[in-house]
Amino acid sequence: MAKLLFTLSDTAMGYDEGDWFFDSDSFDSDRISDTPFTLTQEVLEGGRQDGVRVITLTCENGLTISLCPTRGMDILEVFSHDGTRLGWDSPVDEIAHPKTINLEANGGCGWAESFNEMMVRCGYAWAGHPVREGNMFYTLHGRAGNLPASRVEVEISDEDRPTVRIRGLVKEKVFKGVYFECWTELSYELGSQSFAIHDHLTNVGEYPHDYQLVYHSNFGAPLLEEGARFVAPVEHISPFNDYAKPGLSDWQTFVGPTANFDEMMFNIRPYANKAGNTKVALIDKAGERGVAIAFDTRTLPVLSLWKNTDTLKHGYVTGIEPGTGFCYPVTVEREQGRVKSLAAGESVDFNVIYTLLHGADDIAQVEREVEEIQAGRETTVSDQPIAYE
Amino acid sequence: MAKLLFTLSDTAMGYDEGDWFFDSDSFDSDRISDTPFTLTQEVLEGGRQDGVRVITLTCENGLTISLCPTRGMDILEVFSHDGTRLGWDSPVDEIAHPKTINLEANGGCGWAESFNEMMVRCGYAWAGHPVREGNMFYTLHGRAGNLPASRVEVEISDEDRPTVRIRGLVKEKVFKGVYFECWTELSYELGSQSFAIHDHLTNVGEYPHDYQLVYHSNFGAPLLEEGARFVAPVEHISPFNDYAKPGLSDWQTFVGPTANFDEMMFNIRPYANKAGNTKVALIDKAGERGVAIAFDTRTLPVLSLWKNTDTLKHGYVTGIEPGTGFCYPVTVEREQGRVKSLAAGESVDFNVIYTLLHGADDIAQVEREVEEIQAGRETTVSDQPIAYE
Amino acid sequence: MAKLLFTLSDTAMGYDEGDWFFDSDSFDSDRISDTPFTLTQEVLEGGRQDGVRVITLTCENGLTISLCPTRGMDILEVFSHDGTRLGWDSPVDEIAHPKTINLEANGGCGWAESFNEMMVRCGYAWAGHPVREGNMFYTLHGRAGNLPASRVEVEISDEDRPTVRIRGLVKEKVFKGVYFECWTELSYELGSQSFAIHDHLTNVGEYPHDYQLVYHSNFGAPLLEEGARFVAPVEHISPFNDYAKPGLSDWQTFVGPTANFDEMMFNIRPYANKAGNTKVALIDKAGERGVAIAFDTRTLPVLSLWKNTDTLKHGYVTGIEPGTGFCYPVTVEREQGRVKSLAAGESVDFNVIYTLLHGADDIAQVEREVEEIQAGRETTVSDQPIAYE
Repeated sequence: MAKLLFTLSDTAMGYDEGDWFFDSDSFDSDRISDTPFTLTQEVLEGGRQDGVRVITLTCENGLTISLCPTRGMDILEVFSHDGTRLGWDSPVDEIAHPKTINLEANGGCGWAESFNEMMVRCGYAWAGHPVREGNMFYTLHGRAGNLPASRVEVEISDEDRPTVRIRGLVKEKVFKGVYFECWTELSYELGSQSFAIHDHLTNVGEYPHDYQLVYHSNFGAPLLEEGARFVAPVEHISPFNDYAKPGLSDWQTFVGPTANFDEMMFNIRPYANKAGNTKVALIDKAGERGVAIAFDTRTLPVLSLWKNTDTLKHGYVTGIEPGTGFCYPVTVEREQGRVKSLAAGESVDFNVIYTLLHGADDIAQVEREVEEIQAGRETTVSDQPIAYE
Repeated sequence: MAKLLFTLSDTAMGYDEGDWFFDSDSFDSDRISDTPFTLTQEVLEGGRQDGVRVITLTCENGLTISLCPTRGMDILEVFSHDGTRLGWDSPVDEIAHPKTINLEANGGCGWAESFNEMMVRCGYAWAGHPVREGNMFYTLHGRAGNLPASRVEVEISDEDRPTVRIRGLVKEKVFKGVYFECWTELSYELGSQSFAIHDHLTNVGEYPHDYQLVYHSNFGAPLLEEGARFVAPVEHISPFNDYAKPGLSDWQTFVGPTANFDEMMFNIRPYANKAGNTKVALIDKAGERGVAIAFDTRTLPVLSLWKNTDTLKHGYVTGIEPGTGFCYPVTVEREQGRVKSLAAGESVDFNVIYTLLHGADDIAQVEREVEEIQAGRETTVSDQPIAYE
Repeated sequence: MAKLLFTLSDTAMGYDEGDWFFDSDSFDSDRISDTPFTLTQEVLEGGRQDGVRVITLTCENGLTISLCPTRGMDILEVFSHDGTRLGWDSPVDEIAHPKTINLEANGGCGWAESFNEMMVRCGYAWAGHPVREGNMFYTLHGRAGNLPASRVEVEISDEDRPTVRIRGLVKEKVFKGVYFECWTELSYELGSQSFAIHDHLTNVGEYPHDYQLVYHSNFGAPLLEEGARFVAPVEHISPFNDYAKPGLSDWQTFVGPTANFDEMMFNIRPYANKAGNTKVALIDKAGERGVAIAFDTRTLPVLSLWKNTDTLKHGYVTGIEPGTGFCYPVTVEREQGRVKSLAAGESVDFNVIYTLLHGADDIAQVEREVEEIQAGRETTVSDQPIAYE
């Protein structure tokens, strides 16, 4: 087995590779030549994108995955070889450099000026809706998505299942404040229909500090459509707020693009298997295509289901969001006991696996898995929000 | 007739031309060889200017015009072949990159840290003085001047009157907010003493959205001086606030640089001709030089006259500002019915033509034109502000 | 005598040298060949550092000094040939580009997201703890540390004591606001153990304007340690706030890294010699190493002693901060008469000299000098803060 390791960027060296290209032809390995791929880093120019780095992994007979080191290593979009896309069309159609974003703008909603990723991490010191508390302004969904990575590595390994791993070190550090480092990793077995996120968040400080993390995973067309379904092993579900109450009756299906729908959110506590793992899925109407999300409930115990089935141009999208907590302001989350803390030097791991589903067999199998996790246990539906903002 | 089209920047391609040069020698056209010109794009380095793009069109026997794609395609300054300058000397003597500007700073006045253009567009989702309303912070004169263009094109055409057109696409987009695109255009007939702004603002969203636009056009020396005059066909004029009341008696003339003058603003509703066009002018004391501004009152019905005849170093300048409304906070403008809305997909066009005036004949002709538009109709002077901030 | 002058950056020319190297071999001078040195400018890449310039002067048999044009010409760190370091280990371990800093964040404490320099200028229009007053938001320690230099020059002179001077022009300018230019200079006699700061702040406007300046000079290990001492000729000392009261009894010594120590600050009015100069020093426990800071009390009449003897990872550091005033909010400083004003066109000069102390003789001499300045005069200790925030 051989490994190739590239460092694309390292602030400790004051170094960034800039535009970069690698392909499987340069890696003399039989295993890898079966699954040809290219890897690029591109430096965008112009507008709000100026200076933004985008890494794209293109596997001919598998997935094409693009992610953004400049924006916290978040995932921009994913395509399968048949053209199925994970991602959505946000009104925000450029990849904004964090330097152009003022998170405190408009009551702490500056985050909304750059929101268009397939998966954006909300965290790490806090997540959720904005709230002021003394001098602290907990802005919408925290800083994580607007922190450029301090070190970016790409590892190519020709193990039994040849794998590309793209790692980024994201630091959230403030003097007399938080002192977090998160090693994010996206790993992809060449040729497969899955990719995995493994994040390792460490409190490198010497005092305990609260953390929150929500994997805001967003899907529009073609998976989202009228009649698309959300399947999950659910222990408890409740509306996020009063506006979502009427949506409780058909929370498992989606409507088509709907003017003035705005957004409905639901708080879900999923069941998990004995190991603590669970799986949910978004499935199109025909039951032909979908995406499954598996995650480890030991560190991501809950899930927010965000239905933003607004018009196409305003972001027809659903967010399936495994998290340490729900999307209430951190003050509410803390009060209700969903905010955890990392002791000095302590780490926590997060695992999320996304799998593209192709054809009725894939769909049926995921539905079976969800059913097995549910294992006949009851789903409690509460018609009242558990909290208010 | 031939056309040359250059794309200098396009965020959709992640592309920016950077430093760029073109001159008329490279365009084999008899018509154009009569009016030699150069076109450059320069990428500034250092300080707050780092990364800023400036396009300069230099026409030997006509005008030199510089504008800034990084700052909303706004016009930095204009010189005629005899050295007359349109523009002013702001205390802010660098072309600040929007990344260095926090619009919400100091009560929503961060805009003032970069204000030094000859013409800055105030808009598009709002303009005017800052005001908070719920979570929205309507900062001074909106975002338009601090939005980098997403696409920049230069078109050179050897039509009967050979013309250079510099176009920029400026996007103002926020998830769950505004969804505007504005194609700005500056066109210049080679060799002439005029240049025209034609802006096409579109609500590319699916919901109606309010808009405002003020063409904040600013002139200092040499046109502005003690005894300089402002001529306009005026239906109604009133002071912007109590401080401007004493200035009503001689609103048509300017004082020299005056310590502690600060600023006086006047709200003007101009008369227009039957086609809806009007023309105003700033004329120097000797009646030898000036600048005329023609605009279409169907979309720019009013004009703010801003007299900032402060000391030279603090920005001795007058703003002649055709607008959709006045410079009160958007909440006031809305209340008084001057804020218009664009329906889903709807566009609105704005036309402003600036002409340098040389010699008594030019001046006399503009004064005649203004008189013809006034057509003997009465000017109402109100000594009370129509609103308070 | 010969001089070499390099311009590394000049916004008036839209110019920045970028990566740059010079060494003494290129300067044909006997005097200089005795003290070989290199000078570099490096453009950092990646993360929050992207685009940051760092100038490093390395003198083989003297000091290595690095400073940051992008961050107001502030000093990052200094090493002597024996490895003694001036500087500290902040939790903030990258050199953040000002574009990534929102000074108004978290109640005006955005400054804390980039604080890690050995010496950061706090000013110029204001310094001290944050406070709002009308529309003005006086953010923590002002803008000076987050203003990129507009012009950077390096001068090498083979005078009797060959000297390198690194100068930067820092502008703090806001339309209808402050209109300051500060020419900062760091000068270093090649081979010596001292370097000098000479700053020339000018109000280039035509109205008087308040100013404040604090030289926030920060030292961690190895000089700071349990039992390290602070020596100074003190006329008056008082605790900054109630929390610092218990620290009064042993204000002249330091504790080791201490969990939950947080920070204690003391307001000191030093005695000076007849010329107005004074000297203070930080000395390690063994009395073997230290740093002396001489400054001119005619423009820097007071000193803040900031003891942040927190844990190593949270920034074990002391700040020795000659200033125009103390670190209360500018509103308090103004009320108590410590805020001075610059008339139109007026300038003020600031001089601070840092000297590394090696061995018992150096230490003894500095202690003698401090004693001579004290000259047997009394030290008044007040146990009450002179103000509250």
